[in-house]
Amino acid sequence: VSAGEDAVVRRIAGILGRASGPAPAGSVWIGDDAAVVEAPPGRLVLAADAAVAGVHADLELVGLDDLGWKALTATLSDVAAVGGRPLQALVTLCLPPGTDIDLLSTGLAEASARWGCPVVGGDVTTSSEVTVAVAATGVLDGPAPPVLRSGASPGDRIVVTGPLGGSAAGLRLLRRGAADGHGRARGEADRALVEAHRRPVARLAEGRSARHAGVAAMMDVSDGLALDLHRLAEASGVGVRLDSVPVAPGATEEEALGGGEDFELVIATAHPDRLAESFTAAGLRAPIPIGWCTADPAERTLSDRPLGRQGWEHRV
Amino acid sequence: VSAGEDAVVRRIAGILGRASGPAPAGSVWIGDDAAVVEAPPGRLVLAADAAVAGVHADLELVGLDDLGWKALTATLSDVAAVGGRPLQALVTLCLPPGTDIDLLSTGLAEASARWGCPVVGGDVTTSSEVTVAVAATGVLDGPAPPVLRSGASPGDRIVVTGPLGGSAAGLRLLRRGAADGHGRARGEADRALVEAHRRPVARLAEGRSARHAGVAAMMDVSDGLALDLHRLAEASGVGVRLDSVPVAPGATEEEALGGGEDFELVIATAHPDRLAESFTAAGLRAPIPIGWCTADPAERTLSDRPLGRQGWEHRV
Repeated sequence: VSAGEDAVVRRIAGILGRASGPAPAGSVWIGDDAAVVEAPPGRLVLAADAAVAGVHADLELVGLDDLGWKALTATLSDVAAVGGRPLQALVTLCLPPGTDIDLLSTGLAEASARWGCPVVGGDVTTSSEVTVAVAATGVLDGPAPPVLRSGASPGDRIVVTGPLGGSAAGLRLLRRGAADGHGRARGEADRALVEAHRRPVARLAEGRSARHAGVAAMMDVSDGLALDLHRLAEASGVGVRLDSVPVAPGATEEEALGGGEDFELVIATAHPDRLAESFTAAGLRAPIPIGWCTADPAERTLSDRPLGRQGWEHRV
Repeated sequence: VSAGEDAVVRRIAGILGRASGPAPAGSVWIGDDAAVVEAPPGRLVLAADAAVAGVHADLELVGLDDLGWKALTATLSDVAAVGGRPLQALVTLCLPPGTDIDLLSTGLAEASARWGCPVVGGDVTTSSEVTVAVAATGVLDGPAPPVLRSGASPGDRIVVTGPLGGSAAGLRLLRRGAADGHGRARGEADRALVEAHRRPVARLAEGRSARHAGVAAMMDVSDGLALDLHRLAEASGVGVRLDSVPVAPGATEEEALGGGEDFELVIATAHPDRLAESFTAAGLRAPIPIGWCTADPAERTLSDRPLGRQGWEHRV
């Protein structure tokens, strides 16, 4: 059923408001020209990301709720990647007539509740394809600096916060299931991979814990570990020598290297023991060592073989 | 020439950086997972808007630079509409392969320089149509509350910050020019209308001045004066009785009422003299009275005739 913008905004605001609760006194959330919130003390983190149907999600295989979840989660993963804590999100929806607003809003609301980040405003506009553009604010608690891509030094240990390739493997299973004529993957391991694709996790606690542990450099693995490590190495002026890469059960090494959208964090640190202690103290999974930063800025190897630039890079 | 995301971001960052200058010490702008800036004291204003090719701009008639200008300006107009001062913008570009990145970035850079609002981050992704989604931060200087749509009371004077309909008239001229086979409007008045369409102005000084003058309610005229006044009246629970509407030279009254995208501010205030003095003191054009808020919440009239809901409302 076609609906006007004002009615659509009220409907979305209702669904999001049930997830986030009401605005605190003195704050203005959805419904006016702009939102007004309390500014955090110190430094403000600002991140933006978008999910485009047909590019970031195949709506034959996943739902509009999954697209909404992914757009918000990917943006908050960028906040995590500098060690920030998310505060608010703005969501701009570009929608073809007939889009299932409720389903899309439900996925956004689920991610908003999961990550404790209210959607306080945004915009709704007509478009020929579904695009969800998210911007998020965050705060850097405490005095530690943000963790950038450029801080790694030769000798730093490289670790990741979890095994990789799950999202790409889940997409492969969904495609195969669709080709086989049944839309659902079978078995527990398969379900975990599909879940990794449909509902990725932002490593917010890990990012903050790593920052407080004084790590040197950090990124989220959004486009593929290999490509993202190339970027970290280029920004830091170091080489990368990997021993091994943790592969999610059921995924391939190629999916772990180039699949992207796992949103695990890759971290370089001179003090891996301190990082491991910090994760343990916070009840987090132990960081997984995968290699070292080296002094030769041209070095990119995995088990002494050249490490390619596998990953997803948008082309314009 | 097709280019990868990293090269595209570097190119955009170069063009935007020439407009904004370098990031201040301690701030992180374009190039990492997220931007980090100094948080303002007090309250933070957050606004988002988007410009979609084919919806918000006809790229047969205006340039990609105009689309970029409009996307940033429309977002900052929302910051103006609550009385805020813009601080930073995030720009998410969804682009088909082959998009003229330089032209689009130039329009964004021109608006960024004009409004003193650096673009500190964002995202670039592939898409089937050009979409520019902008999010902006701002600050409310001083103790005055934000000016919302909902604050008007019966008896308040309604004023606008300038004549209306210029953008719609400019679009009409561009369409006629294209139909006539010459792409350019002729004559000074025509050029002013086309400029109003291509390069709208965010009334930032007016919004701040109005807030400090203690006005009751405020909105920007983005979708059409009639529709936007209906929204203000509904949010405030008041009626609206208009005497007249200032029409931009060369525009029609219908364009002034329903054209939208003029981005003038419409203001309700119990103290129009104080507002006028505040504008004069700030060197701004005098506010133009157009009517009154009334006690009958169902009243919507212009010169005693019913005022329709003319304007642009996206349908989904």
